[in-house]
Amino acid sequence: MSALTGKDDGLTAASVPSGAVGVLKVRPLGLDSFRENVVLLSRCSHVLRPERLRGSRRVELTAMGRTLLATTMIADGALLEPDEIGLPQPLFRRLGVQAGDPVQLAPARPPASLAAIRAKVDGLALDDTTLAAVARDLADHRWSDMEVTAFLVACARFMSPEETLGLTRGMIAAGSRLRWDGRLVVDKHCIGGIPGNRTSLIVAPIVAAHGLLMPKTSSRAITSPAGTADTMEVLARVDLSEEEMRRVVETCGACIVWGGRVNLSPADDVLISVERPLSIDTPEQMVASILSKKIAAGVGRLVLDLPIGPSAKLRDSRAALRLRKLFEFVATNLGLEIEVIFTDGAQPIGRGVGPVLEARDVMAVLANHPAAPADLREKAIRLAARVLDADPDLPGGRAEARARELLDSGAARRSMDAIIEAQGASPLTAVLGALEHEVLAERPGPVTAVDCLRIANIARLAGAPTDAGAGVEILHRIGDVVRRGDPLYRIHGSDSSDFAFAVEAAGIDGGFRIAS
Amino acid sequence: MSALTGKDDGLTAASVPSGAVGVLKVRPLGLDSFRENVVLLSRCSHVLRPERLRGSRRVELTAMGRTLLATTMIADGALLEPDEIGLPQPLFRRLGVQAGDPVQLAPARPPASLAAIRAKVDGLALDDTTLAAVARDLADHRWSDMEVTAFLVACARFMSPEETLGLTRGMIAAGSRLRWDGRLVVDKHCIGGIPGNRTSLIVAPIVAAHGLLMPKTSSRAITSPAGTADTMEVLARVDLSEEEMRRVVETCGACIVWGGRVNLSPADDVLISVERPLSIDTPEQMVASILSKKIAAGVGRLVLDLPIGPSAKLRDSRAALRLRKLFEFVATNLGLEIEVIFTDGAQPIGRGVGPVLEARDVMAVLANHPAAPADLREKAIRLAARVLDADPDLPGGRAEARARELLDSGAARRSMDAIIEAQGASPLTAVLGALEHEVLAERPGPVTAVDCLRIANIARLAGAPTDAGAGVEILHRIGDVVRRGDPLYRIHGSDSSDFAFAVEAAGIDGGFRIAS
Repeated sequence: MSALTGKDDGLTAASVPSGAVGVLKVRPLGLDSFRENVVLLSRCSHVLRPERLRGSRRVELTAMGRTLLATTMIADGALLEPDEIGLPQPLFRRLGVQAGDPVQLAPARPPASLAAIRAKVDGLALDDTTLAAVARDLADHRWSDMEVTAFLVACARFMSPEETLGLTRGMIAAGSRLRWDGRLVVDKHCIGGIPGNRTSLIVAPIVAAHGLLMPKTSSRAITSPAGTADTMEVLARVDLSEEEMRRVVETCGACIVWGGRVNLSPADDVLISVERPLSIDTPEQMVASILSKKIAAGVGRLVLDLPIGPSAKLRDSRAALRLRKLFEFVATNLGLEIEVIFTDGAQPIGRGVGPVLEARDVMAVLANHPAAPADLREKAIRLAARVLDADPDLPGGRAEARARELLDSGAARRSMDAIIEAQGASPLTAVLGALEHEVLAERPGPVTAVDCLRIANIARLAGAPTDAGAGVEILHRIGDVVRRGDPLYRIHGSDSSDFAFAVEAAGIDGGFRIAS
Repeated sequence: MSALTGKDDGLTAASVPSGAVGVLKVRPLGLDSFRENVVLLSRCSHVLRPERLRGSRRVELTAMGRTLLATTMIADGALLEPDEIGLPQPLFRRLGVQAGDPVQLAPARPPASLAAIRAKVDGLALDDTTLAAVARDLADHRWSDMEVTAFLVACARFMSPEETLGLTRGMIAAGSRLRWDGRLVVDKHCIGGIPGNRTSLIVAPIVAAHGLLMPKTSSRAITSPAGTADTMEVLARVDLSEEEMRRVVETCGACIVWGGRVNLSPADDVLISVERPLSIDTPEQMVASILSKKIAAGVGRLVLDLPIGPSAKLRDSRAALRLRKLFEFVATNLGLEIEVIFTDGAQPIGRGVGPVLEARDVMAVLANHPAAPADLREKAIRLAARVLDADPDLPGGRAEARARELLDSGAARRSMDAIIEAQGASPLTAVLGALEHEVLAERPGPVTAVDCLRIANIARLAGAPTDAGAGVEILHRIGDVVRRGDPLYRIHGSDSSDFAFAVEAAGIDGGFRIAS
């Protein structure tokens, strides 16, 4: 029989160098394997004998001109016929096939770029060609999670600035790249770690109101109580396609969308999906991740917020300086103008922590509400001014006044309304969690410290960001003098067991320090 | 409702610190997820809402007093009821439950030992307590494959001899330990990499015939064309339990079994399962792996074969010396007497490469057949002599003569027959592959080199070890002078497409070098 039809004698697998292919019929399955690609084969499969898979469970599927890699499971029962391949939902959608369609199956050939792992373990530096191949194969999901992990750990602390540059360049090339016809495209980004720090949702409408383009993509929270995308989703739809995103930016001057449906630096999404569960967060990966996304989005000038504080990602100015220089080195070499700003990361920004509470803060600032949190307003104005300074038509020293003016006049608020309308209605019906608990000062005195990690953790325990209405409402800041029994912050939630855990955690360590 | 019954309001998951548990009914599924533990939950599950799993898909299952970790998939269709948990076959067996039995489910709490990964990435050394906890959690399958990968890569080239000792000690403690009532227990091990090097199957019966105990556990091949267990399986059953293994050794003085069903250093099995697909093979892990298995098996004296050659694992004497010292340091500190022997790893040993061909060589040597491969016989005698030297009753300088005597007299052969009978009949009906192809010398002259990796690769392509009768029969060795057209080796196989790949690969590079 022919190796191309894979009929009755069973095609070989793990030990075959290339080319052994069989054809199976698609059977969609009511299974969700999350982001992992999994396929099911019958124990009596016509094309791949399970005993051949002892060495590796990875297979290559080809359909509709696309090839994807997947991990195999075997169906013993009546779930599948021998000439069928079972596709759980994520893979069925990704392949774009119909039930009964033919799919070609072959044992996965390990991509040549995997040699980069061995090279890094051996202490070698990788050249640009290798790093480009790594980024491309990451973007094509050709590496297993274990391989991605090995690469990340082997690179941790052993990656030169030149390699970081090469990886960033490769990551940009491995995805789409937005072009904006020579117009001035700006953005603002924060490396994260400070609860409530939602300045992007204020900076973007100010910048758009001024007339510059700001096509902002952002991430959802994984370890924090809210990502920019989670908070924006309280106000509008955020899962826009690349084409929809472009239309919003063309119409409104800015957007604030989730990066998951656009193909900007897709290798970064793969790296992040492994970094997050492992809590690996190296400066080199952070630089490659942020800058590849921005450059792929067509950004020409970036203002970068690096908060420094005892519970922030950057604990001291030495670490901040090192990171700033790495950002500047890579950005400059890729033609991105960057301004790095060190900010106060000693405590949360604004009052709300959690999607609904943060969205409320943002809208209060945009509406010039007298009770709007002043720290969030002032930080957003400062950052917006640095962004507006990119405009050659704005006289030197005028940027901050211009940002303030656009906010005070309601122009930024109108700009935000337009962005929300263009992005579409939020799929959520998010309201503030009805369960409330106030955490009280145990002694009188001045607040001397607020632990960002602890506050973030309590907000997460209360249910944020999955429960958008859960979170923490902060009532005092460093320097405030409180009396014993004064409420320091309020925990909100809607699920009683989540809420109980958050209250319990706050009772063990509330995150506030009060001097005696 | 109570957090312990998990009835109707849905229990929280990813963000919960501990203790949130729900109970589901077991539904066994006709699915095989290989060694990975996978569970299926209904999209409408009573105890764990899928949207809660966004951060981590890992859950803890408790049943029959055992807790195991698994990765979640979601069933959307009619596959599962909301109060059921679907268990694929490997996990169903591992939990030891029946259909309908209750299983407690909770989001997995990350084990504290995971901090070791961060510490190694940060360049710190781990103390014995930490390494013991790592080994215990590895053995209990509490680490994901990604976490194991991160640990291995972070340790690669950054592990001190003291840490290797601590890890080895922890790995021994995390499994069973065989005791032999103070009797002299010996073993012989090779670090691998040389095709056909099946001396263990000759050394074990010689040692047993002499009267010492040699409880040998060995591995199956993953990247080589045959492991000791694969070759032994041609002759006898090898998947013995710990109790069965002990009985064979008590009866016959030795055994040669597969290590996969005995619980000796189970953490090693987990590490190896990740090292192999990633081809990570560091000296430190090799030492911890081999020595933990031997000490757990109750071995008191070990003879270790380190082949050195241009295509062997050890390429030069410097690398071999470093490895020898590490083996000696760890073994001595754990009370294991070790003798390391450097051997010639320039070319394959014996004639056969692949289970059936190797078993044939072994039985020919044991039967004193005139055509038996002399190199295999002499190497086995040399190693057996080093092992027999452990016997205090054997006068100095007599060991080699004694080994030769036991082989020549047929005592070793009778000992092997007894071991085979005690282990039971082989489940295989393995015969030499009927397809044959001779690889011919392309020029006349002396053979100057044989590439071990290439020969191993061709034997694997031909189907070994999955197809036990596939492999390579080597007809010439280094130093032989061949004529143009003389057969250098013969490829055997039974699957025509496998066979064709092997023949094609041999045509590209046959692995033999002939001087002109």
